[in-house]
Amino acid sequence: MLKVTLAQLNYMVGDIHGNIRRMREAAAKAAQDKADLVVFSELSLCGYYPGDLLDEPSFLQRLDAGLQDLLNLTRQYPALHWVVGAPTRHQGPGKRLHNSLLVLKDGKIRLQYDKQLLPTYNIFDERRHFEPGADTAKVLRIGNCQVGFLVCEDGWNDRVANDQGADYATNPFVRMGDAAPDLVVSINASPSHMGKREQRHEIFAQAAQRHRLPILYVNQIGGQDQIVFDGASFAVEPEAGVVFEARRFEEDIHTLKLDEQGHFQPIHGEGLGRVASQGLPLMEFYRQQIVLGLRDYARRCGFKQVVVGSSGGIDSALTLALAVDALGADNVVGITMPSRYSSAGSVDDSVQLCRNLGVKLHEHPIKDLIDGYARQFEASFGEPLKGLALENLQARTRGTTLMEFSNAFGHLLLTTGNKSEVSVGYCTLYGDTNGGLGLLGDLYKTEVFELSRHINRRAGRELIPQVIIDKPPSAELAPGQKDEDSLPPYAVLDEILKWQIEGHHLSNAEYARAAEFVQRLRTQPGGPETIARVQKLVFRSEYKRRQAPPMLRVRPRAFGTGRQMPIAAHYE
Amino acid sequence: MLKVTLAQLNYMVGDIHGNIRRMREAAAKAAQDKADLVVFSELSLCGYYPGDLLDEPSFLQRLDAGLQDLLNLTRQYPALHWVVGAPTRHQGPGKRLHNSLLVLKDGKIRLQYDKQLLPTYNIFDERRHFEPGADTAKVLRIGNCQVGFLVCEDGWNDRVANDQGADYATNPFVRMGDAAPDLVVSINASPSHMGKREQRHEIFAQAAQRHRLPILYVNQIGGQDQIVFDGASFAVEPEAGVVFEARRFEEDIHTLKLDEQGHFQPIHGEGLGRVASQGLPLMEFYRQQIVLGLRDYARRCGFKQVVVGSSGGIDSALTLALAVDALGADNVVGITMPSRYSSAGSVDDSVQLCRNLGVKLHEHPIKDLIDGYARQFEASFGEPLKGLALENLQARTRGTTLMEFSNAFGHLLLTTGNKSEVSVGYCTLYGDTNGGLGLLGDLYKTEVFELSRHINRRAGRELIPQVIIDKPPSAELAPGQKDEDSLPPYAVLDEILKWQIEGHHLSNAEYARAAEFVQRLRTQPGGPETIARVQKLVFRSEYKRRQAPPMLRVRPRAFGTGRQMPIAAHYE
Repeated sequence: MLKVTLAQLNYMVGDIHGNIRRMREAAAKAAQDKADLVVFSELSLCGYYPGDLLDEPSFLQRLDAGLQDLLNLTRQYPALHWVVGAPTRHQGPGKRLHNSLLVLKDGKIRLQYDKQLLPTYNIFDERRHFEPGADTAKVLRIGNCQVGFLVCEDGWNDRVANDQGADYATNPFVRMGDAAPDLVVSINASPSHMGKREQRHEIFAQAAQRHRLPILYVNQIGGQDQIVFDGASFAVEPEAGVVFEARRFEEDIHTLKLDEQGHFQPIHGEGLGRVASQGLPLMEFYRQQIVLGLRDYARRCGFKQVVVGSSGGIDSALTLALAVDALGADNVVGITMPSRYSSAGSVDDSVQLCRNLGVKLHEHPIKDLIDGYARQFEASFGEPLKGLALENLQARTRGTTLMEFSNAFGHLLLTTGNKSEVSVGYCTLYGDTNGGLGLLGDLYKTEVFELSRHINRRAGRELIPQVIIDKPPSAELAPGQKDEDSLPPYAVLDEILKWQIEGHHLSNAEYARAAEFVQRLRTQPGGPETIARVQKLVFRSEYKRRQAPPMLRVRPRAFGTGRQMPIAAHYE
Repeated sequence: MLKVTLAQLNYMVGDIHGNIRRMREAAAKAAQDKADLVVFSELSLCGYYPGDLLDEPSFLQRLDAGLQDLLNLTRQYPALHWVVGAPTRHQGPGKRLHNSLLVLKDGKIRLQYDKQLLPTYNIFDERRHFEPGADTAKVLRIGNCQVGFLVCEDGWNDRVANDQGADYATNPFVRMGDAAPDLVVSINASPSHMGKREQRHEIFAQAAQRHRLPILYVNQIGGQDQIVFDGASFAVEPEAGVVFEARRFEEDIHTLKLDEQGHFQPIHGEGLGRVASQGLPLMEFYRQQIVLGLRDYARRCGFKQVVVGSSGGIDSALTLALAVDALGADNVVGITMPSRYSSAGSVDDSVQLCRNLGVKLHEHPIKDLIDGYARQFEASFGEPLKGLALENLQARTRGTTLMEFSNAFGHLLLTTGNKSEVSVGYCTLYGDTNGGLGLLGDLYKTEVFELSRHINRRAGRELIPQVIIDKPPSAELAPGQKDEDSLPPYAVLDEILKWQIEGHHLSNAEYARAAEFVQRLRTQPGGPETIARVQKLVFRSEYKRRQAPPMLRVRPRAFGTGRQMPIAAHYE
């Protein structure tokens, strides 16, 4: 019999003292529950992912000191094993560090296991800093149990049954199966995106069954720049599958018993049911992920309040609603900035929206400023300001106004672009792309509508006025302008984009739908031209994305480090 | 006896047809010289580095078709071996591609060698897409010679003598030494930075000597976003060292003989001398690297002309001078945008500068625009616009004006920030950071002065007016403002920054100087506080760098992918 406390915490990158404090509090709770071990997540000492901080000698010194502090703390509960994640030194050829799991007890390191499979795809780049560990199972006797250990990616190469091909030549689960411990503890920093929780359950339930191993999977929560961790730590048994799941998007500390038969049990009473395979509905998942991502980004960068340019359109409306959800209405400010080409709704709908949300709205017309620019432009450059230059000027004057406000009053500016716009470059650099963080940059426009409707349904009232949801999307930078004058309808555009940008990263169902859609479009008059035009727009706007702020990732393949494309390239 | 043509070309990422055309032309020249083999560089088929284009199925199809085209071309010169670089498919666990060297002859692939050492540090991320090749030397008999092959990084782990520790567990040079071919051909995509040429000579001359191998090292030239390749391909012998060097920063096609004694010879006549170990003087190196980087970036992005905001300060002056150097005076436009706080010199010195350079200068005052913003700010937000918000507004109004010009007339906007400013965030996001490319972003301010003086010396006259070089640096955003009011003197700042940001990436001499400087500063009154303040500024301005355009890399550790730091982190 073994008592295990899973400590699903919100660590901050670089905040070694703070992370130790969080671990200490969880260890106190574990000791209270008389747990044999308390399990933290991958790189819990330094937060995930520290990047090139790992190259700084002073950072490594702080890590050494932090590990010493942790070791000293373990003496307070001499019977408790602490399973922590930390970079450790590697001697010999290769990178100078390992991504390690350490079992600490009573002032000593009882076991060190170095992560074997270091991901180098999508947002991951661990081979940059770490050397892989040896292909050996590490097992420690705790009480009368043998406990084996894995770190995150180590568990993801067990795909024989999935027929997906292996990402690495070795599969740590095979050695672990040979060692046949009573329990496998897997520590993780597993970023969250659409479908990820279900994928984890599938992979680990299959591995548990195939290798006859009960597995405890501990993840972290919290937002780290573009990335959000959702927690949802879980316990899985060979036969019963996933029998326990911790909270999502919240810290959670929970103690379980592993009984003699290898079943997980609650510490009081008996019986854990099978956890539902279906998680949050997609839109509610998006909402919770974005809310946590914003909350952590703002807090960690030292912002209490945010400001959003309110155009009367759906993107800014949804951004405002999510910001209120994350930070409270008192901490959110909207600014409406009508120009000559703004519809009446631009201001009126913003007023209604901000009233619904309880948010302060400022009005700052830009017409005179635009006129001033246009006059000076003609005087200096000898031609009237017109066309695209005039359209972009409006966006930039608004972006400048928002930054005035941000600089003067200390609010974090949120940018409002969605993934459809960002994909095809339907946005003005140094204008509406201004901001420290984007909330919708990984949501397609069709999803922006869907999430807006969800927000209203959830509130039981029109937080986002229906008129905003119903109006045809427009940048309102020229008379009578509509997005669909220059872009295909979003229902078409989004399917092309999913197919082009995310491809095999999509779920099977979403990919099949997008691929079939594109296939059908190819056979329609003008279809191939539409597809080619979209592809070209995506390639040609790489330079804009390079200068974009971080945009919260909710899908498997987000812009940012998830998709690394050259700018000055030839695309056929 | 073997005749080898080294083809040092300027490939473009993604331009498979264009790259094949370039190779075909060089092959024709090789055939004319009756060469046995013509050597192109690493990934010559697709350009270096294609990034996630390698994940696109359509790109892989284009590569397949391109390789077939190349194979067909080789039939035109049936006696000629083509040594090309291309991604090839990898079967089995791991990444789906290899970074391969292929020897093609008369329609067939005669040899495939897969790069073994895949760099994952600094700007390199090859493990993201490629699986390493097997630890075996690949040798091909050509005529009566055995020729061995390596790809770039494969040659960089031979550091026993240097006592620097090994970056990888294997050293391809050891197996190559065992195979003892008559010649080793190394194909490379080796980005250029201060000291890199000398480092290549040192590493490969030592390896040639240690393993008794004559080596032909073929590099490419050209600018790829932030990165510039300098060519400088070379031939090195075990005893004599580097005996031949191709041009730097220019395409060069050159045929050499390898005689029976293993000596390289010119094809006509005899005798190659030892190549001087010292390359270009540093400032001339910077100049040539930046000129090529700008030229290629502009051309590849479809720009003929550039525009620069001319403040009358040294950064914009040097940017203008380098732009003229790269593109010609007719293709460069300056805009002076005086405000209330601009010194008289701001306009007058810009006029003189642009007259010296032969560049068209527009004057576009921003005083009225600033007044308009300030009026509307107070009317909308109820407070006067002042302090930092007012300072930044000036930079943003200028940035907006420059983008009006860029959008209206189709000029590429160049940003002018130097590495000192970019490091400490002494710049306005969406203001003076606006632009598609930065020329000086990897030069410290002290180097900006030095390069400016070099440009004048080289021209034999004041291209950059001495008054601009002599005036104390100022952002001119507030009355009487000087950079050194808010920052340490640049002579101090730059040494701290070199030590903090580049550390062990610096040359030994530069590192020793910076480390000693910082050490001394620590013992001086206020020294530790200055150091701490600079470090904090660097960490706190990560968010600005994340939104910066590509800045041409000239030093070993440039911002961009060369230094990957989290934004929302805790720095102690």
